[in-house]
Amino acid sequence: MPAELVFVTGGARSGKSAFAEARAHALGGAGVTYLATAQAFDDEMRDRIGRHRADRPAAWDTLEEPLDVAGALRAARHPVVLLDCLSLWVSNLMLADHPDDAILRRVDDLLAENTRTLIVVTNEVGLGIVPDNALARRYRDVLGWANQRAARASTEAYLLASGLPLRLK
Amino acid sequence: MPAELVFVTGGARSGKSAFAEARAHALGGAGVTYLATAQAFDDEMRDRIGRHRADRPAAWDTLEEPLDVAGALRAARHPVVLLDCLSLWVSNLMLADHPDDAILRRVDDLLAENTRTLIVVTNEVGLGIVPDNALARRYRDVLGWANQRAARASTEAYLLASGLPLRLK
Amino acid sequence: MPAELVFVTGGARSGKSAFAEARAHALGGAGVTYLATAQAFDDEMRDRIGRHRADRPAAWDTLEEPLDVAGALRAARHPVVLLDCLSLWVSNLMLADHPDDAILRRVDDLLAENTRTLIVVTNEVGLGIVPDNALARRYRDVLGWANQRAARASTEAYLLASGLPLRLK
Repeated sequence: MPAELVFVTGGARSGKSAFAEARAHALGGAGVTYLATAQAFDDEMRDRIGRHRADRPAAWDTLEEPLDVAGALRAARHPVVLLDCLSLWVSNLMLADHPDDAILRRVDDLLAENTRTLIVVTNEVGLGIVPDNALARRYRDVLGWANQRAARASTEAYLLASGLPLRLK
Repeated sequence: MPAELVFVTGGARSGKSAFAEARAHALGGAGVTYLATAQAFDDEMRDRIGRHRADRPAAWDTLEEPLDVAGALRAARHPVVLLDCLSLWVSNLMLADHPDDAILRRVDDLLAENTRTLIVVTNEVGLGIVPDNALARRYRDVLGWANQRAARASTEAYLLASGLPLRLK
Repeated sequence: MPAELVFVTGGARSGKSAFAEARAHALGGAGVTYLATAQAFDDEMRDRIGRHRADRPAAWDTLEEPLDVAGALRAARHPVVLLDCLSLWVSNLMLADHPDDAILRRVDDLLAENTRTLIVVTNEVGLGIVPDNALARRYRDVLGWANQRAARASTEAYLLASGLPLRLK
């Protein structure tokens, strides 16, 4: 039986993380590993990470891994894992000079290997004007493809807007 | 009993205002106060405001208030008020140097005080690439939080796309 | 009886074209004319066009027309036409110095004249921060209005996110 995969997408500040945390709590109670992909390069980012951490249940494990997310997933102590977020993982891999096909293969491998109940948070970034710079356009493409793969593999999927979920699947 | 709150969000040119006006007309007929937060700084903005006004029923009252929206709401003559829009109000407060928490407190206060049937129009702005400039990122955050508060307090909520509504709540 | 019109919108890399192609195949089988509006100005664009073409059934006709889309539609050999995409057509007309009202009239005329089963692919571009440059703001406006017209005339409509469809109509 394939593992349960909950896919949660939406824009910035759309309430994705809060929704995903509520779903993780419903599925795993206190037995949830939070797998963070964020890297704090500056104060703005450090603030965002700190704010998010303070909002999570104290009993949850936290793993921080910007690149080897599949390895961190295998190392997780709990049967329910909340990956927050796929979009930053893709961004981290791009910044570490991984080519597009290697990034998408990593996403495929993670989805294929996974045996846990996995909640995946990600971002929709393709609903604005075409960005001026080529790196942003490449990120839109690669993340869009990665999102499609995760959404296709999901057993339930949601689009968040203003904190409210639309059921995609 | 809490007042009725209709939340209407969507992108630019997604038909939010037309949908909100139709909803206001259905709820209040000719007895609607239109509460505009737009300020005409330039010709482009003046054109947009003029076009919108020409589309509204002539019987409706119009109040224009960029900052003290709660005060304007208390002064409205009709039991149905259409606030167009929350996103510009937040933008006006930011440009007038109000800090984030003060802006969100104003939104909370307006939602808590309101005794009318209120239709709130707002924008989703978080579904593109992360903006280059810090002010735009801050606006995305604050507006996202404001939208979540209004959507949570709403009794019905819609996301517009290409002029068509998706029911959020 | 008005012709069947399937409206497919979404962000970049949201799976719009694949969804529209599947819908075209279901409606027309091998008897589909693919009407492409893309113009290859540079290598990036040529790559995108080539990738898309390789994904389509070999039996389909392809017409390429950046500007006179109504003429190409009349010339199509099959009763089912997939227009990919409205958003690039609007962009091409703007770059060829057509004024806004002339562009929207062309869209209206195409919708009014059409007697085929038409699948229209387009982009939602209004869900990010207001763009800095005036041309991008104008494009958001004109495309938003064009999308509303096509969505209003449609007999079915979908918003794609991460490859999954939300039914708009």
